[in-house]
Amino acid sequence: MQNLPTYDEVVAAAGRLDGHAHRTPVLRSRTADERWGASFFFKCENFQRMGAFKFRGAFNALSKFDPAQRRAGAIAFSSGNHAQAIALAARELGMPAVIVMPTDAPAAKLAATRGYGAEVVLYDRFTEDREALARRLSEERGMTLIPPYDHPDVIAGQGTAVKELIEDTGPLDALFVCLGGGGLTSGSALSARALSPGCRIYGVEPEAGNDGQQSLRAGRIVHIETPRTIADGAQTQHLGNYTFPLIQRDVDDILTVSDAQLVEGMRFFAERMKMVVEPTGCLGFAAACAAGASIAGQRVGVVISGGNVDLQRFASLLSAS
Amino acid sequence: MQNLPTYDEVVAAAGRLDGHAHRTPVLRSRTADERWGASFFFKCENFQRMGAFKFRGAFNALSKFDPAQRRAGAIAFSSGNHAQAIALAARELGMPAVIVMPTDAPAAKLAATRGYGAEVVLYDRFTEDREALARRLSEERGMTLIPPYDHPDVIAGQGTAVKELIEDTGPLDALFVCLGGGGLTSGSALSARALSPGCRIYGVEPEAGNDGQQSLRAGRIVHIETPRTIADGAQTQHLGNYTFPLIQRDVDDILTVSDAQLVEGMRFFAERMKMVVEPTGCLGFAAACAAGASIAGQRVGVVISGGNVDLQRFASLLSAS
Repeated sequence: MQNLPTYDEVVAAAGRLDGHAHRTPVLRSRTADERWGASFFFKCENFQRMGAFKFRGAFNALSKFDPAQRRAGAIAFSSGNHAQAIALAARELGMPAVIVMPTDAPAAKLAATRGYGAEVVLYDRFTEDREALARRLSEERGMTLIPPYDHPDVIAGQGTAVKELIEDTGPLDALFVCLGGGGLTSGSALSARALSPGCRIYGVEPEAGNDGQQSLRAGRIVHIETPRTIADGAQTQHLGNYTFPLIQRDVDDILTVSDAQLVEGMRFFAERMKMVVEPTGCLGFAAACAAGASIAGQRVGVVISGGNVDLQRFASLLSAS
Repeated sequence: MQNLPTYDEVVAAAGRLDGHAHRTPVLRSRTADERWGASFFFKCENFQRMGAFKFRGAFNALSKFDPAQRRAGAIAFSSGNHAQAIALAARELGMPAVIVMPTDAPAAKLAATRGYGAEVVLYDRFTEDREALARRLSEERGMTLIPPYDHPDVIAGQGTAVKELIEDTGPLDALFVCLGGGGLTSGSALSARALSPGCRIYGVEPEAGNDGQQSLRAGRIVHIETPRTIADGAQTQHLGNYTFPLIQRDVDDILTVSDAQLVEGMRFFAERMKMVVEPTGCLGFAAACAAGASIAGQRVGVVISGGNVDLQRFASLLSAS
């Protein structure tokens, strides 16, 4: 394995992203501060390009390609935000992209990915292995496969969000980051350790998908079945070979929240902060709200990871409870 | 009549608001830029305290009270954002507030207004005149009545949003602002004329409530019946004695958009920019989208006035079309 990425690589990634990614705003809410007794700083990656932090890692990874890699382009397998991030970053950098997606992916996601100019290659979820297909295409076409989280350049790119957050707010006492495969959490921890050394760092998972928490307890990467949760961006089955050791080293603890807590978070963001946040994007805030006395009077950073939720689903989640 | 407010008073208002109002972010959207062929700068007053720009004017007006006025407090009649703005500003400044609201106002609005610590005085919309009631209470209790738009301190406060916008973006070619009673539009025009003298300034009304457009054409304040439109913040029946001459002097034109265009704007803000915007808040953007060649390649400022829409209503407006 290569060496683990460092904060220097986050700084280099920030230079590459300058002028391409949005420097997203840090929003405040007096209502949140009063209700939960802390000073919250919300880093709004739902306002990032394509609606999620994933653009940062994808763009950083692709912009490090050498000329031959650029000509051949990038390939990814994902039905979520990573696919669109790779598609958009490739378009921005003028290179081809292939995204491997299931035949039953929502039409809107297929259209959006194609809209960013990527070639979509479909596979049957029940008979084909998407990873094997992607690797074969990668070899046949010489395209570089970019995994969704377990890649040093992806991790360094994701770390730029919290770098911006702490540059804007100054030191924090605690930081709550949503945790799926660990790209955002490990990158965020690199920035927080460098810029706010005393800050406690928490990764937050859905209760049903607490493989990260189990891994941290067990001291090794624990694999789980695909969890049932509304946090579709955190349905990963295991941490990665880069993200796990970074999380072991830099993250204070991994917390979990229920789907009901995520819906409460979505409602707060929509009603009080006028933002559309996807369920996964509410993980950090939901855990912070449940933290009680441990954050009382403290300066608390919360990363909102994305806002890509179908509006019908958004409405039905909010009206159901 | 007093003299009309000037840009100097906007600058003074900005000083008073510092540390009390949010400096709201200016968001960009590459999708909007590509689709409509201009560079858009969205001033997001839906992220302002209590969810709308109205806090700026209310706080500025109340913070100019002398000690006797502060002791007696402020009074307002409104069932919308102005009521909550006065209630919150009064609480922030430690003075009493009375809000005159109809008996059939939504329970949520009554609760929110009381939640900000204001006393709510109810009136029957069919048998009582709210303005007369407010004036009587004002005289009986020595409270200062703050009208929703036609007041120099309110206008100067509202002007601080576009002051911030142009400070952040530099000069603009065109500015689109939603127009109800004209407080936001006339204040915005003071700032735009001072900071970006060549900028074309447009007030935007709902088609059904184009009293401002009629007034500009006629050269006098035209009164209309309460219009039927989903833009509940722009259901004013006439401009004011301060706002009309300012608009006559500084605004280039008044445009109108349909309710269907407002819903399209709401959908774009929710789906692509991940924001909850109330129908009135979409007036400026809807008109900019319809402006076509006249804004091609230009730097276009759009003020999003607020995000206070009931989530059920939000969902039903977006699913209806």
